[in-house]
Amino acid sequence: MASITDVAKKAGVGIATASRVINGTGYVSEETRQKVQAVIEEMNYVPNELARNLQQNKTNTVAVILPDVSNMFFAALLKEIEYLLRKKGYKTMLCCSDGEETNEEAFLDMLKRNLVDGVITTSNLLKQGSYAEIKRPMVSIDSILSEDIPMVCSNHKKGGKEAAQMLLDAGCRHIFQVRDTVDEEIRNRDKEHEISSKLFPFVERHIAFEKTVRNAMKKAKKKSKISYHETLSLGLTGADAYRKQAKEVFDKYPDIDGIMATDFAAIQYGIEAHYRGIKIPEDLKIVAYDGTDAARMFYPEISCIRQQIDKIAGEAVKLLLLQIDQKPIRKYQVTLPVQVINKYESETRANK
Amino acid sequence: MASITDVAKKAGVGIATASRVINGTGYVSEETRQKVQAVIEEMNYVPNELARNLQQNKTNTVAVILPDVSNMFFAALLKEIEYLLRKKGYKTMLCCSDGEETNEEAFLDMLKRNLVDGVITTSNLLKQGSYAEIKRPMVSIDSILSEDIPMVCSNHKKGGKEAAQMLLDAGCRHIFQVRDTVDEEIRNRDKEHEISSKLFPFVERHIAFEKTVRNAMKKAKKKSKISYHETLSLGLTGADAYRKQAKEVFDKYPDIDGIMATDFAAIQYGIEAHYRGIKIPEDLKIVAYDGTDAARMFYPEISCIRQQIDKIAGEAVKLLLLQIDQKPIRKYQVTLPVQVINKYESETRANK
Repeated sequence: MASITDVAKKAGVGIATASRVINGTGYVSEETRQKVQAVIEEMNYVPNELARNLQQNKTNTVAVILPDVSNMFFAALLKEIEYLLRKKGYKTMLCCSDGEETNEEAFLDMLKRNLVDGVITTSNLLKQGSYAEIKRPMVSIDSILSEDIPMVCSNHKKGGKEAAQMLLDAGCRHIFQVRDTVDEEIRNRDKEHEISSKLFPFVERHIAFEKTVRNAMKKAKKKSKISYHETLSLGLTGADAYRKQAKEVFDKYPDIDGIMATDFAAIQYGIEAHYRGIKIPEDLKIVAYDGTDAARMFYPEISCIRQQIDKIAGEAVKLLLLQIDQKPIRKYQVTLPVQVINKYESETRANK
Repeated sequence: MASITDVAKKAGVGIATASRVINGTGYVSEETRQKVQAVIEEMNYVPNELARNLQQNKTNTVAVILPDVSNMFFAALLKEIEYLLRKKGYKTMLCCSDGEETNEEAFLDMLKRNLVDGVITTSNLLKQGSYAEIKRPMVSIDSILSEDIPMVCSNHKKGGKEAAQMLLDAGCRHIFQVRDTVDEEIRNRDKEHEISSKLFPFVERHIAFEKTVRNAMKKAKKKSKISYHETLSLGLTGADAYRKQAKEVFDKYPDIDGIMATDFAAIQYGIEAHYRGIKIPEDLKIVAYDGTDAARMFYPEISCIRQQIDKIAGEAVKLLLLQIDQKPIRKYQVTLPVQVINKYESETRANK
């Protein structure tokens, strides 16, 4: 394979000049540039990118840290991020944290060691401060790392409220949600959800959902008594795990008539209801949170709160590239609206 | 940040000695090694990985090329590959070809330019030979690149045959499949599927499916006349696209009572059938090909032909690492069994 020395020799220029042409840096006369370019093409010279990276201290690579790529929300997010980065000339390094702290740490280490130019993370298993101490380009999605690190998330407070209101309006009286929690430890010392909602904006949806139902409980007349129930999905993944949970929940709360859960869980709750002969939507209404294509895989159609994955990815990539290009960031926390897709007619409207 | 020069100076050794300790190469006395190691820890020295990569000409990174990461089959495959590579100390670079030739070419270029140590590809949009001319570590999944490049796939011939037989045994008489095609051009000049099945092993499933149905047609008595129909899924993705196709198919062939399609498509055909009041499984039986968790998102349960994604990933990673470590490969084509998950009792058995 031709080296830069070969190219310089054949073009009759010094190695420094050849290097300037190859890297597009410094002044080279147009005549010389063309001459060197011709030799490059003739010799089919491919620069050693590693050497080039070392010189420029840039890898044109961004690491994306996700807990689980087989979750359709993260898969769709990754697809968008990879696409947007690619269009800007960046490659995507995939880092699955698998819910393990050590994995996340190892990937962060890559940023320290110049192996990537920046990190977009949707995971936050490390000690508070681990991210903040690395003064390199970083963006988080749905997790607050520090004030200095830009964060993008959906308006989960609105999402949770709308989901509960949709169920209440449609006449549901025994309302249930599957709470996503990241860490049992945080959950245990966080009865009021104050810590976790400060760290993880998505927790806001659960708080808003519960609050909306409890407010309705207070207002409700005795004859239309409303109840609220919940369970946790501690690290559950896969169809089997969600079905098993759905079975336990229907055994424990046979009366529930309104459910909010993430797409995959929502579908498995729906399937379990079908098996039990519970009529959807007549006797049970489901709201799928995230609203990916997975929420479209159920008959009959269920309602959903849709996160705008394309916009989340767009904002995250934009905020990261601003840092890599050393440009100023105006807004460190970007909250994007959710879309409400309501398939259930409200009772008041239906009664008219 | 401490440099190797700082470390060497403080430890009272030469730079070459410090380098040998850091990279674990060449002879260094135990005493010296410990002295340098102590200084490394004291100064919190982090080697510049780029410089190290350049020296070793190794990146410990593998590129994985996929057409679409939001497809659950590829997402599950990527998850396994990333996990296995990570356990072996390799990072995963994600490359979505998005069905565009230029994207695939750009990623392959990275291999030429030493940016990755190897490539695992599930895409093959490039001209025959483009892959073969790169003499670097490579493995393909479900696509034959050249005799020299190891390939892993499922036994699709068996899969297609079993799917058709399952439907025939369960009494289906008007049998339909959605054919996946990679390239319209290949399809057009390939009426007998000879070219495409040589390039893409998965095409074997469609050939075997059709053949099995046509053989049954020949043998069938007049009173139980069997028919075969098909459509193509040319680059369709997403729930909407599959539903639209399902509508057209049911309009055109209202009598079909057995369908084989990939998971996502299969579910949308099932949902459309529900909307039309077609009873599943009584009047329509569906076999989902791939058998990912997506195939578990339907009520009532449908049959599936399951590709063993964990084993495919395992073989692919194994074959790639053998090449990176310059060890011999015994078998260049690995075909893995499919799992048949039959939810439909056969007619003969039911009649007993």
